[in-house]
Amino acid sequence: MVSFESDYIAGAHPDVLKALQETNLEALPGYGMDVYCLRAKEKIRTACDCPEADVEFLVGGTQTNQVVISTMLKDYEGVIAAETGHVSVHEAGAIEHAGRKVLALPQADGKLSADSVRAYLETFYADANHDHMVFPGMVYISHPTEYGTLYSRAELEALSAVCREYEIPLFLDGARLAYGLAARTDVKLPDLAALCDVFYIGGTKCGALCGEAVVFPKGNCPEHFVTLIKQRGALLAKGRLLGVQFDALFTDDLYLRIGQHAMAMTEKLIAVLEKHHVEFYTESPTNQQFIALRNEDWERLKNAVALSFWEQPDDEFTVFRAATSWSTTDEDLAALDAALEEVFA
Amino acid sequence: MVSFESDYIAGAHPDVLKALQETNLEALPGYGMDVYCLRAKEKIRTACDCPEADVEFLVGGTQTNQVVISTMLKDYEGVIAAETGHVSVHEAGAIEHAGRKVLALPQADGKLSADSVRAYLETFYADANHDHMVFPGMVYISHPTEYGTLYSRAELEALSAVCREYEIPLFLDGARLAYGLAARTDVKLPDLAALCDVFYIGGTKCGALCGEAVVFPKGNCPEHFVTLIKQRGALLAKGRLLGVQFDALFTDDLYLRIGQHAMAMTEKLIAVLEKHHVEFYTESPTNQQFIALRNEDWERLKNAVALSFWEQPDDEFTVFRAATSWSTTDEDLAALDAALEEVFA
Amino acid sequence: MVSFESDYIAGAHPDVLKALQETNLEALPGYGMDVYCLRAKEKIRTACDCPEADVEFLVGGTQTNQVVISTMLKDYEGVIAAETGHVSVHEAGAIEHAGRKVLALPQADGKLSADSVRAYLETFYADANHDHMVFPGMVYISHPTEYGTLYSRAELEALSAVCREYEIPLFLDGARLAYGLAARTDVKLPDLAALCDVFYIGGTKCGALCGEAVVFPKGNCPEHFVTLIKQRGALLAKGRLLGVQFDALFTDDLYLRIGQHAMAMTEKLIAVLEKHHVEFYTESPTNQQFIALRNEDWERLKNAVALSFWEQPDDEFTVFRAATSWSTTDEDLAALDAALEEVFA
Amino acid sequence: MVSFESDYIAGAHPDVLKALQETNLEALPGYGMDVYCLRAKEKIRTACDCPEADVEFLVGGTQTNQVVISTMLKDYEGVIAAETGHVSVHEAGAIEHAGRKVLALPQADGKLSADSVRAYLETFYADANHDHMVFPGMVYISHPTEYGTLYSRAELEALSAVCREYEIPLFLDGARLAYGLAARTDVKLPDLAALCDVFYIGGTKCGALCGEAVVFPKGNCPEHFVTLIKQRGALLAKGRLLGVQFDALFTDDLYLRIGQHAMAMTEKLIAVLEKHHVEFYTESPTNQQFIALRNEDWERLKNAVALSFWEQPDDEFTVFRAATSWSTTDEDLAALDAALEEVFA
Repeated sequence: MVSFESDYIAGAHPDVLKALQETNLEALPGYGMDVYCLRAKEKIRTACDCPEADVEFLVGGTQTNQVVISTMLKDYEGVIAAETGHVSVHEAGAIEHAGRKVLALPQADGKLSADSVRAYLETFYADANHDHMVFPGMVYISHPTEYGTLYSRAELEALSAVCREYEIPLFLDGARLAYGLAARTDVKLPDLAALCDVFYIGGTKCGALCGEAVVFPKGNCPEHFVTLIKQRGALLAKGRLLGVQFDALFTDDLYLRIGQHAMAMTEKLIAVLEKHHVEFYTESPTNQQFIALRNEDWERLKNAVALSFWEQPDDEFTVFRAATSWSTTDEDLAALDAALEEVFA
Repeated sequence: MVSFESDYIAGAHPDVLKALQETNLEALPGYGMDVYCLRAKEKIRTACDCPEADVEFLVGGTQTNQVVISTMLKDYEGVIAAETGHVSVHEAGAIEHAGRKVLALPQADGKLSADSVRAYLETFYADANHDHMVFPGMVYISHPTEYGTLYSRAELEALSAVCREYEIPLFLDGARLAYGLAARTDVKLPDLAALCDVFYIGGTKCGALCGEAVVFPKGNCPEHFVTLIKQRGALLAKGRLLGVQFDALFTDDLYLRIGQHAMAMTEKLIAVLEKHHVEFYTESPTNQQFIALRNEDWERLKNAVALSFWEQPDDEFTVFRAATSWSTTDEDLAALDAALEEVFA
Repeated sequence: MVSFESDYIAGAHPDVLKALQETNLEALPGYGMDVYCLRAKEKIRTACDCPEADVEFLVGGTQTNQVVISTMLKDYEGVIAAETGHVSVHEAGAIEHAGRKVLALPQADGKLSADSVRAYLETFYADANHDHMVFPGMVYISHPTEYGTLYSRAELEALSAVCREYEIPLFLDGARLAYGLAARTDVKLPDLAALCDVFYIGGTKCGALCGEAVVFPKGNCPEHFVTLIKQRGALLAKGRLLGVQFDALFTDDLYLRIGQHAMAMTEKLIAVLEKHHVEFYTESPTNQQFIALRNEDWERLKNAVALSFWEQPDDEFTVFRAATSWSTTDEDLAALDAALEEVFA
Repeated sequence: MVSFESDYIAGAHPDVLKALQETNLEALPGYGMDVYCLRAKEKIRTACDCPEADVEFLVGGTQTNQVVISTMLKDYEGVIAAETGHVSVHEAGAIEHAGRKVLALPQADGKLSADSVRAYLETFYADANHDHMVFPGMVYISHPTEYGTLYSRAELEALSAVCREYEIPLFLDGARLAYGLAARTDVKLPDLAALCDVFYIGGTKCGALCGEAVVFPKGNCPEHFVTLIKQRGALLAKGRLLGVQFDALFTDDLYLRIGQHAMAMTEKLIAVLEKHHVEFYTESPTNQQFIALRNEDWERLKNAVALSFWEQPDDEFTVFRAATSWSTTDEDLAALDAALEEVFA
């Protein structure tokens, strides 16, 4: 059985694990006050070309979205997101649980357009009854999106311009940012720091055991953020677990190299899938590929290959996700090739 | 200046105010334990032909939606509603503030169809990742809807059947129920008691100073409901204010008569509007009528007639709401006629 | 049966009800935008000698505490209150339901002292782990307190000074303020405006059917307060209900006269109780008197006189509250006298 | 510099880290569905002698308290805890942030007594106004407590009996349970399973990088718990991180051996402290020792020894915590001895 189920099927990248091993016996203060947290923050500031940034570490993606959104929005505000956005659909209502509404807008390829955001904002403020509605107080985008797609720099600039015009923050969810940075793209870390008001650099899905690094480029971290994190149950006693991992990820370009390896594997994955005439459901430039399989084909394939259920467009086909990561090997691709051969030959 | 701005432009129906006056000096226990609350509840049970119902009084519509939804849903559940539903758009995020997601579905004429609800539920449970999503735990409808439309008995039966199949409650928001009951309809109070799991009989917009009566037809009021109401800041010390008013509203069919008067006035209102070839934006069988006016016409009309802004479909036209109520008089209609004459003649 | 159960056993003061009657047919805009709300706000500003104050109306006391505290505190803050404070004990957890902790301090006669508040603040900031604790972000006091006692002007000045030193607001719950103003006291409305950062003038327990007027003396009302109120289910469509009542209460010193009548009746009440050697549990300078009755005496009294259960200090005695209000009459006192005569003679 | 600052100054116990290393490349499903989670749960059931238990893994202690309390309490309920309990003081209001009140009772040696809990419950239900108060819906204790003390089996039995009489769950916070089990005690894991309704076995402070194992002995895990965890931002994509660690901790009695090592080191720690006549602030039978140091002594010691600030009883003394763990060595104790020698000789 070979697995392309997700980019979190393995543990940590060996270099990350090695860093945990090497620092294991050091006595360090708790709650993120240790030297590895400080060092990792500094390296992230450098990588983002943003020396004044605040950087904070959290454990997982949904938690990060919940903490960032609930601490940056005022009570009367909600967050604009694509209707397919992770916060809209796949966080079990974490944002609403924190008291905030997700204002879902239509998407194309998983992306929000600056035009639709602007139209929403204009309509909102033109409505004479808007005091009875949730104020749009933030724009949330994911990059790569839930469909693996990427914003171009021009698209981000347009979104950023709308947000600044209306004085609301642009928040970018980078749970899979390593893959986004390694894809064919004109968007680099310093672009995110320049265009977003807050974004996070995903660890869990990019080589860490867990961990996400939230960047507030303008030093605009909410006041008493540690207390707010603690209050949301999100503060680690052994904060080093996050600091050591991000220190490793931002040493010798490991984060970028993880993305590059996965993208190289993705090219091979696409080639294998194309070879067997597997139908692509969408076009994705990053490490998640979405394919439609006939249900009877899947029945024959599923004992040899693990994929993720994605959606059920009709009775005949099911859409699955196949993902690569730092841990994907040529052997994995050969095993996939063999399994597809058996089903489709 | 004559006003058709809403059905809450005047105070209380004179019979309601008279009841407040007549009982004013009686010494009564607080927090809804008084004889008028008890009597009003009994009268409502009788009117609903539902002797086992629990009836509780709350102050306003948004509050009632928030209390009912947040006390009946489990934490992992959200409420299905039309995308135009009051809870979806016009409650400033009250449902999300209470930690629950509104699962907005497309609507037609402001209504949810049983088919779309069923499709949503089927898709949800067929999704292998639904544990990461908000469980649909209730269906919310308004009757009349925000567009003045009404569900037929067959439509309600179909919605009720889906809800029972999936064992989730059907909640009907009757903020303007008096008008719904007095319109041409096959839906009466006992039908609501038979088909819904919880509904409320609106007072504020149907002749009371304030107040909504929540009916749990199966005696299915949440445990310790008084404590839950208090905790949400919604318990009145002088509960009599609600009891006395609903006692009056359900004496000698006053609630129905209020609806009937408003509907009679609505017919006259429609006649006046048609006489002046005003464009109807939607077709509404109840006391709220939605009309589209050219912006320059409205500029000439607005000093003589008060209407509510509804929406702005384009740059040329604005949609307004004109509403009747127990307080609408023939003089009001004559004044409207004269004002329109001046603008359109 | 005569009732001294509370100061909300009757409806509205006749002058308040008359104002509702006289304005009943006027067509007015909703949601507090009517002329009576505006006029009442202006009269309250004048009475408080505080022309720059923001004034907003809410429906009930617990709701007001919940709205004020949850909109003025930051997420990482809690509210300091006496352990016997209404927000600490008798609001069914409304403050915690809104996500905020009540930091309960010991009390004397129902009051918080400036010294204990200062000591708490000093200890908090001296604690090296205070980032893991709830920041004290507001001081809540009630005046009169739950035990009927009053702060002197010097006591309020001392509390105000501590709050200003630590830059946290002082919030005064005036649910029964009319009685506090009419008692022997050196604290008047302008003193509250000068010393507090927010306070409310209680209507429900001082002659209105419902309603509390929140005063932000420095024009420091939270941004988009109407939206925040709506979101908490606390906005009335017929906002006039509150505006008309407060307009009446602040016309011709009615609010003060209501307090004075109740205090005159309280003096007579005390005389009747003393005549029968009833034991006072505490000493209260306002309209609530707390008496301890042997259980067997209460059994004989309870069919003739309604009082409120207060607490059960031991197996033999129970403490009850007897309250006067605008509606208390000499006949009520005579009936009490006769009933006590029968029990204690 | 030697550190006794806490029991989380080092990384993971080497056997735990080894297990992470050995399983690192295995492809496993996410969200706790992997074989290590299943295996660890089974081992915990065996260790607790409780085959029907539900076991779930969470990341940290405050998170666990927040998730357990907010999912097990009904909205109208709060949790009884010692006034010194972690949930009362040191979680930044996490319980209140989740909408629930902590009902703080007096403590002795950090412990709640069954008598005080019973008295609270009796008084609550005897209060005629208890519908306006927060219902006591759970009893929270920590074992070891925040002061290092332990409940005896008889004390736990008495607490359990009160809880069962009132049909509310007994929740035991075992953040440091390894030390409690290894101390001189008659309380073992199967006793907790028999006497508590829910408890957790702490990992973070007992040898893991992070992780707590919640045990519902009666199979009484809240419905859709995974969704509730996700909604609170507490679900790990790489659930294996917790499963692998707890599998290691419950292999070959590692969890117990970690406790035993720390307790052996604690005896030596006490001996060193006594040798230098350091004043013990409280008597603790577990791995946390609380000592009072003159401020001038601390000034001389603090560059050689790291301790935790605990509290400031007066101007002259400060109380510090010294803790041992699996990582404490004889060299650490020798370094402490030398440092104290320098200060106190």
